[in-house]
Amino acid sequence: MVNRYSYQILDEFLIRVFTKIGCPFEDAKIISEVLLVSELRGISSHGLARVKTYLGLWEAGRITLNNEVKVIHETPSTATIDSGNGYGMIGAKKAMKLAIEKAKTAGTGWVSVNNSNHFGIAGYYAMMALEENMIGITTTNASPLVAPTWSTSKFLGTNPIAMAIPAGKNPAFVADFATTPIAQGKLALIERKGENCKLGYVQDKIGNPTTDPTILKQGGAIVPLGSDYEHGSHKGYCLGAIVDILSSVLGGANFGPFTPPQVAFLPLLEKSTGKGIGHFFGAMRIDAFRPAEDFKNSMDEWIDTFRNAVPAEGHEKVLIPGDPEREFTEIYMKEGIPILPDVEIELLEVAKKYNVKTFLE
Amino acid sequence: MVNRYSYQILDEFLIRVFTKIGCPFEDAKIISEVLLVSELRGISSHGLARVKTYLGLWEAGRITLNNEVKVIHETPSTATIDSGNGYGMIGAKKAMKLAIEKAKTAGTGWVSVNNSNHFGIAGYYAMMALEENMIGITTTNASPLVAPTWSTSKFLGTNPIAMAIPAGKNPAFVADFATTPIAQGKLALIERKGENCKLGYVQDKIGNPTTDPTILKQGGAIVPLGSDYEHGSHKGYCLGAIVDILSSVLGGANFGPFTPPQVAFLPLLEKSTGKGIGHFFGAMRIDAFRPAEDFKNSMDEWIDTFRNAVPAEGHEKVLIPGDPEREFTEIYMKEGIPILPDVEIELLEVAKKYNVKTFLE
Repeated sequence: MVNRYSYQILDEFLIRVFTKIGCPFEDAKIISEVLLVSELRGISSHGLARVKTYLGLWEAGRITLNNEVKVIHETPSTATIDSGNGYGMIGAKKAMKLAIEKAKTAGTGWVSVNNSNHFGIAGYYAMMALEENMIGITTTNASPLVAPTWSTSKFLGTNPIAMAIPAGKNPAFVADFATTPIAQGKLALIERKGENCKLGYVQDKIGNPTTDPTILKQGGAIVPLGSDYEHGSHKGYCLGAIVDILSSVLGGANFGPFTPPQVAFLPLLEKSTGKGIGHFFGAMRIDAFRPAEDFKNSMDEWIDTFRNAVPAEGHEKVLIPGDPEREFTEIYMKEGIPILPDVEIELLEVAKKYNVKTFLE
Repeated sequence: MVNRYSYQILDEFLIRVFTKIGCPFEDAKIISEVLLVSELRGISSHGLARVKTYLGLWEAGRITLNNEVKVIHETPSTATIDSGNGYGMIGAKKAMKLAIEKAKTAGTGWVSVNNSNHFGIAGYYAMMALEENMIGITTTNASPLVAPTWSTSKFLGTNPIAMAIPAGKNPAFVADFATTPIAQGKLALIERKGENCKLGYVQDKIGNPTTDPTILKQGGAIVPLGSDYEHGSHKGYCLGAIVDILSSVLGGANFGPFTPPQVAFLPLLEKSTGKGIGHFFGAMRIDAFRPAEDFKNSMDEWIDTFRNAVPAEGHEKVLIPGDPEREFTEIYMKEGIPILPDVEIELLEVAKKYNVKTFLE
């Protein structure tokens, strides 16, 4: 039995929680919005299931409330932002806004962020560009769980890439994906079910393929997209590395293995190579390359063409990136956002602990 | 028995060939340089083996010599270039130079190119940014051989991404990879040997996995990086699609299935959705984000860290993207560039046909 609640009810609840710990209303609103947009897009691993973890980081003194978000370096089309160790969403949203502002005059805008924390789904920020007739790009580094090809060292996160591309009559193209065969959340789900995972997701502590989803606790690692060298995992390693470098080295955040843990139960690392975790944001005006109408017509034709690709046997249709998430959003806005029972219990415990009204009342 | 020839001897030969058909000396020099840098990097599929094909395109009237390369749209950080249907390298090198020039004043520069043809290796252009203390990015679309996940329609090329990132004392990070598990050239090699390929490279005409490397001739397709949906091929499809859109829709080139064939024996397509094939180039000044020395120190630390990752059992070391290609270059500059016997025969036939001095004399 899964209960459903409206966006508005959950939004009001999350704002109550985050203002209660001391977030300014505007910041709480941003945190809530990013978490709930993730739920609306069917990515529940980055939604309400994170609330307790987010609060745990603050309880452990690892998050600064009322964080100052400062531009510390800039050129006409670029900037670097110090996010003041706040919840990731707050600096991230300001960074993407700045990228968009820069694009208005320079054609494109590119902002790197350091001293940040987990920022939710990358796609949220990339999609901010759409209403401005811009292409949006977002990457972030993340806690290291992934081993480079031919290595056993967990040096990279599942490092996502998000790209949102506007169209005309069609809904936008929105890709948002980890640079690994499987996201950590899905692996945890397989573990909870007591099942084995497929070969090609993880490796053991000496680098051999295994189907044991608990292997990360025994020195194992997630492998890069491609799964093994013969199927191009070195390309997935390149992608994860590029995301890491753009998100950290470029703007002065911690890179790869030094990315601070985003859960309070893991100790902070002794060595740091920068500040906090890092993100990278880009906005490109489509009319910086050709008239916007021409771009949109061509993008519509692209989408129509790919939507009409011949399905493989056993499949009904070919998807455009963003299709499944948009379908979730439509259903959940109408019928409410479903919350898994254990997440619901967690949220009710949070309400009690912080003495705020629940979403049931 | 494989013969080796010096870069200079081969360069002089290629310049003789391309000036003989009517290329201006400067253009012939660029074509030769990109082909030979590809050989030096060990990517012989994009080097001398392409000469006959390139000439075939000109013989078929599909390439314009003395092509005009025109900027048709621009903003402070962007431009779109019409490459005048020339050999791809000519417009591509000018486009990357323009991206670098824009970055000098705007912080970053981004140039899309339409009306182009095959441009050799993407990495060549991305690496042009390195000597300017910039990060270089290059993508191109290509003849459609790859089916989106859950489809049998060959709608995408092997669409490469190249990214070159400068370091300090360490050699630069240079990634240059197709967004598929295997490049077409390697598949052709397996076919020539009469062997089967691994599962996870190609699918048959109804979309089932197969080990038959000849399957592309029977309605089959290469699959995206990730190999199948359960191992993330939808992420590889996203990557291939992003490369296609940035390289074509953004600047007005033909997209996906309408990308014109880059071999003369295939007929031109009836429908077009833009001009020629397209590329996309980016240059980002590292000091547009933080002081260049800080970036370089951090990048050196990144490279040292990853180079010292623990190797998996059976492996001696973990590679940094660009390592293997740099090793090839060092050897080939010293010992000469090895040419496969059938490629050597092809080049000698070219010399005879166009009545130019060979590389043997």
